[in-house]
Amino acid sequence: MKTAAYGVQNATTPVAPMSIDRREPGPHDVLIDIAYCGICHSDIHQARNEWGGGSLYPMVPGHEIVGRVNKVGTHVTKFKLGQLVGVGCMVDACRHCEECHAGEEQYCDNTVFTYNAKDPKHGGLTFGGYSERITVDEHFVLSVPENLDTKAVAPLLCAGITLYSPLRHWDVQPGQKVGIIGLGGLGHMGVKLAAAMGAHVVMITTSASKAADATRLGAHEVLISKDADDMAKHAASFDLIIDTVPVAHDLNPYIGLLKRDKTIVLVGPLDPLEVHGANLITKRRQVAGSLIGGIAETQEMLDFCGKHNIVSDVEMICAADINEAYARMLKSDVKYRFVIDIASLKS
Amino acid sequence: MKTAAYGVQNATTPVAPMSIDRREPGPHDVLIDIAYCGICHSDIHQARNEWGGGSLYPMVPGHEIVGRVNKVGTHVTKFKLGQLVGVGCMVDACRHCEECHAGEEQYCDNTVFTYNAKDPKHGGLTFGGYSERITVDEHFVLSVPENLDTKAVAPLLCAGITLYSPLRHWDVQPGQKVGIIGLGGLGHMGVKLAAAMGAHVVMITTSASKAADATRLGAHEVLISKDADDMAKHAASFDLIIDTVPVAHDLNPYIGLLKRDKTIVLVGPLDPLEVHGANLITKRRQVAGSLIGGIAETQEMLDFCGKHNIVSDVEMICAADINEAYARMLKSDVKYRFVIDIASLKS
Repeated sequence: MKTAAYGVQNATTPVAPMSIDRREPGPHDVLIDIAYCGICHSDIHQARNEWGGGSLYPMVPGHEIVGRVNKVGTHVTKFKLGQLVGVGCMVDACRHCEECHAGEEQYCDNTVFTYNAKDPKHGGLTFGGYSERITVDEHFVLSVPENLDTKAVAPLLCAGITLYSPLRHWDVQPGQKVGIIGLGGLGHMGVKLAAAMGAHVVMITTSASKAADATRLGAHEVLISKDADDMAKHAASFDLIIDTVPVAHDLNPYIGLLKRDKTIVLVGPLDPLEVHGANLITKRRQVAGSLIGGIAETQEMLDFCGKHNIVSDVEMICAADINEAYARMLKSDVKYRFVIDIASLKS
Repeated sequence: MKTAAYGVQNATTPVAPMSIDRREPGPHDVLIDIAYCGICHSDIHQARNEWGGGSLYPMVPGHEIVGRVNKVGTHVTKFKLGQLVGVGCMVDACRHCEECHAGEEQYCDNTVFTYNAKDPKHGGLTFGGYSERITVDEHFVLSVPENLDTKAVAPLLCAGITLYSPLRHWDVQPGQKVGIIGLGGLGHMGVKLAAAMGAHVVMITTSASKAADATRLGAHEVLISKDADDMAKHAASFDLIIDTVPVAHDLNPYIGLLKRDKTIVLVGPLDPLEVHGANLITKRRQVAGSLIGGIAETQEMLDFCGKHNIVSDVEMICAADINEAYARMLKSDVKYRFVIDIASLKS
C-alpha cells in the first residue's frame, strides 16, 4: 500500500516528503500506524552517507518508532488491533545462528536493519519510521506500556536500549558506582536507567554547565573531566563506565577511573581511540563495545521503564522541521531527543 | 650479609659485578641460594630507565628466580632447608587491601617489586635475582616441582605466570580456539600452556619463518597476520587472544578475529594502540590487560607445569654475558629466554 513518508533521494538532498510502498501484512506480520518517531544521530550519518559509503537510496530514516496496531496477519499471536507497540533498529535477522538463538539478534551477521538495508525476504529496501505506517514481523515488534507518555517512549527503542543493555550485561547492582560519559540523547537515558537500577550514578562531562540538568535527571554526582583534581579523587573507584561520546577523545583518563577488573563500554565512539596498554594491564581493566540490545532485552527494558516511569526527555517537531532538527543536533542543541509527530506528516 | 651480584650503577652503565647487602632472615623470611635467574625484557627497560624515569639505582635486576632454601626464620612453616623454591616479580604487598585479600597481590597499590623498588619494611632498595642470594618473606616464595628441568623453570616465574593468569581468568576450556600473538619469551609460554589446557592453539605472527617452531611448541595452526585472506578465514572465530607484542602495532585486525563477547588480552603492549570502537561494538568484544598473576595462582601455575612437564625454552649464559644477552634480546635473537647460571657469578 502507498504510504506517506519523509526521506532523502541521495546523500545531498534535504529530507523531504515522498511516497513509499508498504507490504500488506503476511501471516506473521503486524501493520502499525506510526504515531511518533525519534530522530537518532545515526539517521543523519546514514542519510548523508557518512558511514563508509554504504547508504542505499531512496532512504526513509527512523528506528525509534511507536504506534498502534492497525492490522495483524493470520498467525500473529503476540499483538491485537489497537495495541500500543514499538519498533527499534531491527526488523529481521537470520533466526538460526548462535546469536539469534541466544536472543542477541543485534549481533547476527544477517540482521535486517529497520531502514537503509536490503530486505532479503520481501525484496527492495527497508524504510524506517519517518512514515505513516510500517509492516514488521511480530518477532521484531515490542509491546509498549500504556502508562508512559507515548511520544517520549519513542527514543527508548534505540537510545534507551543502547544504555539498558550494557547496564544489564555488566550486571549493575544497587549501590555500585556507575559513570556515564556525555550528557546527550544516549547519556541522559543512561543516567535515568542506572539510577532506577539503584546505582550511584556519576555524570562525567567536560561541561560544568550540564551539572544541574544531570542532577535533575538522577545523577548523584557530576565529575568534570577537565578537572584533574576531581579526576584524581575518583581514580580506580568505578564499577562500570559507559562512554556515549561519538567523536574522538582521550579514553585513558576515563580508563584510570575504573576499579580492578571493571569495564568501560563504548556505545557512542566511532572515531579511533588511542588506548595505553599500561592503563589496562595495571588493574586488569577492560574496554568493550555494545550495540543496542536483543529483542527480548528490549521488551524487558520497556517493561522496566513502564514500572519505573522512565521516558526520554523530548522536543516534539513536525515532519517539515526535520532538516532544521538535524542542523540543531549537529550543534548538540536538543534536550535530549527530537521526536517527530507523525500526525504532522499526514496533513 | 654481603652478597655477590650483577647490576647497574645508573641508566648508562653496563651490567657489572657489585656487592649488595641481604638481610638475615626475620621470623617469616626464607634465605634462598639462587641457582638460576631468567632475563626479562623489562630488566632492560628498568636498568636503562626507559619507563618514565622511575628507576632507582644502584639496581640489581632479575625476577625469574629459582634456588634452594639456605635458612628459614623461626616462624616459617611452608618451607624447609634444601627445598627447591622460586621468587617472581613481587616480594611483598600491603596484605590488607581488597586485592591482597582476593589473592591478587599484583594489583595491590603497594606491591613491593622484587627489584627497582623501595623496601618499606626493611629500608633501602629491593635487589633482584642477578645475585647469589635473596631473602624473601615466605608468603612470596613459591614451591618448585622437583621433576622439572630446574634452569628452565626460572622464566615461569614471570613469563609463565603472565600467560597462565589470563588463560585461567578468561576461563579457557578444552577445545576452545585460543590465539597467541607473537612468538617470543611470553608467546612461547602461551602456546605451551594453552595447549596443555586442551585449547586449539593458533600462533598469530607476522613471520612465516616461525611456523615450524610454533608447531613444535604445541600450536595447532599458524596464522600469518600479514595474509589478508588467511585473516578473513579466521574472522570472528576466536574465544580468546593474548597479545604479547611489546611495540606499537595495529590491534584492529586482531580484534576482528574474536567471536561475540570475547576478549583480546594485552600482556605485552606498552606503546599506545589505536582502537576502532566499531570493531568492539559490532560484536560486544573486549580489549583487556593482565599483569603477571597472584601468589596462589603462581603456585597453581608451577604445579600445573610440574604435572604437564612444561618449562621454558632457554639459552644458558654466564653472568659476564648479560650485556651481550641484552643486545641480542633487543634484536629478538633468543629462543626463547636467557637464563643466568648463578654459579658463574660466584666464581
